[in-house]
Amino acid sequence: MKNFDINEDPHRRFNPLINEWVLVSPHRAKRPWQGQNETISTEELPKYDPTCYLCPGNVRANGLNNPEYENSFVFENDFAAMKQDEIIFEDDIKHTFFKAKPEQGISRVVCFSPRHDLTLPEMEIADIENIIKTWQKEYTDLGNIKYINHVQIFENKGSVMGCSNPHPHGQIWAQSSLPTQVEKTQISLKSYYDKNKKTLLEDYVEAELKAGERIVIENDHFVALVPFWAIWPYETMIVSKRAVNKITNFTAEESAAFAKILKQLTTKYDNLFNTSFPYSSGIHQSPTDGLEHPEWHFHMHFYPPLLRSATVKKFMVGYEMLGESQRDITPEKSAEILRQLSEVHYKSLVK
Amino acid sequence: MKNFDINEDPHRRFNPLINEWVLVSPHRAKRPWQGQNETISTEELPKYDPTCYLCPGNVRANGLNNPEYENSFVFENDFAAMKQDEIIFEDDIKHTFFKAKPEQGISRVVCFSPRHDLTLPEMEIADIENIIKTWQKEYTDLGNIKYINHVQIFENKGSVMGCSNPHPHGQIWAQSSLPTQVEKTQISLKSYYDKNKKTLLEDYVEAELKAGERIVIENDHFVALVPFWAIWPYETMIVSKRAVNKITNFTAEESAAFAKILKQLTTKYDNLFNTSFPYSSGIHQSPTDGLEHPEWHFHMHFYPPLLRSATVKKFMVGYEMLGESQRDITPEKSAEILRQLSEVHYKSLVK
Ligand SMILES: O=P(O)(O)O[C@H]1O[C@H](CO)[C@@H](O)[C@H](O)[C@H]1O
Ligand SMILES: O=P(O)(O)O[C@H]1O[C@H](CO)[C@@H](O)[C@H](O)[C@H]1O
Repeated sequence: MKNFDINEDPHRRFNPLINEWVLVSPHRAKRPWQGQNETISTEELPKYDPTCYLCPGNVRANGLNNPEYENSFVFENDFAAMKQDEIIFEDDIKHTFFKAKPEQGISRVVCFSPRHDLTLPEMEIADIENIIKTWQKEYTDLGNIKYINHVQIFENKGSVMGCSNPHPHGQIWAQSSLPTQVEKTQISLKSYYDKNKKTLLEDYVEAELKAGERIVIENDHFVALVPFWAIWPYETMIVSKRAVNKITNFTAEESAAFAKILKQLTTKYDNLFNTSFPYSSGIHQSPTDGLEHPEWHFHMHFYPPLLRSATVKKFMVGYEMLGESQRDITPEKSAEILRQLSEVHYKSLVK
Repeated sequence: MKNFDINEDPHRRFNPLINEWVLVSPHRAKRPWQGQNETISTEELPKYDPTCYLCPGNVRANGLNNPEYENSFVFENDFAAMKQDEIIFEDDIKHTFFKAKPEQGISRVVCFSPRHDLTLPEMEIADIENIIKTWQKEYTDLGNIKYINHVQIFENKGSVMGCSNPHPHGQIWAQSSLPTQVEKTQISLKSYYDKNKKTLLEDYVEAELKAGERIVIENDHFVALVPFWAIWPYETMIVSKRAVNKITNFTAEESAAFAKILKQLTTKYDNLFNTSFPYSSGIHQSPTDGLEHPEWHFHMHFYPPLLRSATVKKFMVGYEMLGESQRDITPEKSAEILRQLSEVHYKSLVK
């Protein structure tokens, strides 16, 4: 019998945002890997690609031409997962097992830059501030539509994350219902707020800043950290220090600080394996259902799949799908690695 | 305004096993795909591979020799996610955000056959019955260990599902806690049983057999179906007709019928894209905590990632991670496709 050592012994950690546990196996990073290797493109991209349907001036699948845009550019997804049609529906309460209801929604694509080759870490901070403005405008416009109660802003980066076009872009799926993960989060945030009259993330950020060991970057208004309950090897979260519940409530200073930490974090990510680092990221913030939502607190999740190198990812498969998420290195170790990485992009050193 | 058509209109469906919704976009299968293609191995495997650490007689990472086994063979995972060590731990209630506790467990690897090249669909039914016997023995042995309260039997098949050795094998992770997904399921099953004095899955199978449209295979004792709430394109579930709560309670006839439906379902899977079909599968059944658990009902989940072809999978990424699972074809359509596929393995036709 020995005393519990969180850095050495297998254990479970609790995620208070969605009320779920994760299995942590600190010692397991040492196991040999003979499995799948991802293919990564090391090809230098051109500034403009005549065959890219996202580049300025080019033709999209639906036959329309993109404008000669100069900052970011937003258009309606031609193959949206939801439609705007209003549907007549009578709830059939007889169905215990076959519960379904129509869902109205809008999907948009947000091109981050006219440049085909510039991802977030390589963009100027002023350009990132422009993307933030675009997100603010879309959150407002979409949120103002009567039937839209939630606006999900996200990015799939890299082919390993299902992205089909390297031109830097994100997506927005706005819809009438709260998606499952957001609803779970809202329940936790609300119950904490009702009890403490402070947001859960306000207190959490304070506790993390005091602990220090999971902090990756800190500035006056934001913190980037590896959550205590992170499931992906290099998962992080950017959280505002102030309890601001949506992106449209940022002060000018907060917008600037957010742009800066976005550039710093994604630069560290690229520097980790000297590659354009794949991830899915997305913002969790107040629903747009017209209610106050003082329990919400702006945060952005980064879920990157890579584990050991630019080509070996963590597989969330059998045990993880049937049982629960499992990770092979501790969040503290990941934070330490990310913290020590340079904020100067590796490509700028080569050139 | 039009009336809701579940075959055409985007909608959400409810999963009563884990109390979560899934977004279904029937029309979206038509979108063009320029994203990542998986590499598939079409290489014929040898019956015995001298470099394989799972083949009979060969040496494993820890220096031990595998026996010259003739059916299935079980050994302790050399790089287990959990350890058997008993750990002294004092719960620190001051930690609102940093909740962790040690987890004791055992991981085993189950080789399905001495043959390096034989996956489930290509094995004889008698050999599959042998695997079922092995699962029963392991469930009993591990379940009898005092601190083991849950035994997760699963298989990761194919390199796209993180499997690092093509020699047919599965795993068993046994542990002291109920993993997150199992705990969620247990809550739903128990609340249904307490109310109805029948298992949720007994009534569900009855409703599905009546509806017919999601059934893939049926025999006297088991049904293979695409759940109404399936998230993966060709996700299925094998459920016992009788409310049997664990694999060790199968009658001899049930074991035989289970072996048969396993062979039939995995054969259909291989025939779908004429490839060794990747998936993660696993059994959900009664915990081994010593309680009765009449609410549990044996079922086996199959989560296969492929969507359009042997090389194009469904990506559960940005929206799915931040929002909720989303699928591109209806479960009814998938069931129809699987139902119509032959039960004769495509390889046996070529030879
Ligand atoms: O144990 P293996 O086969 O080495 O590993 C595989 O299955 C495990 C259980 O689902 C996962 O945690 C790993 O990510 C995966 O690569
Ligand atoms: O919309 P895209 O970029 O074509 O598609 C990508 O992102 C979507 C939203 O996360 C996923 O549903 C798709 O599986 C993925 O390939």
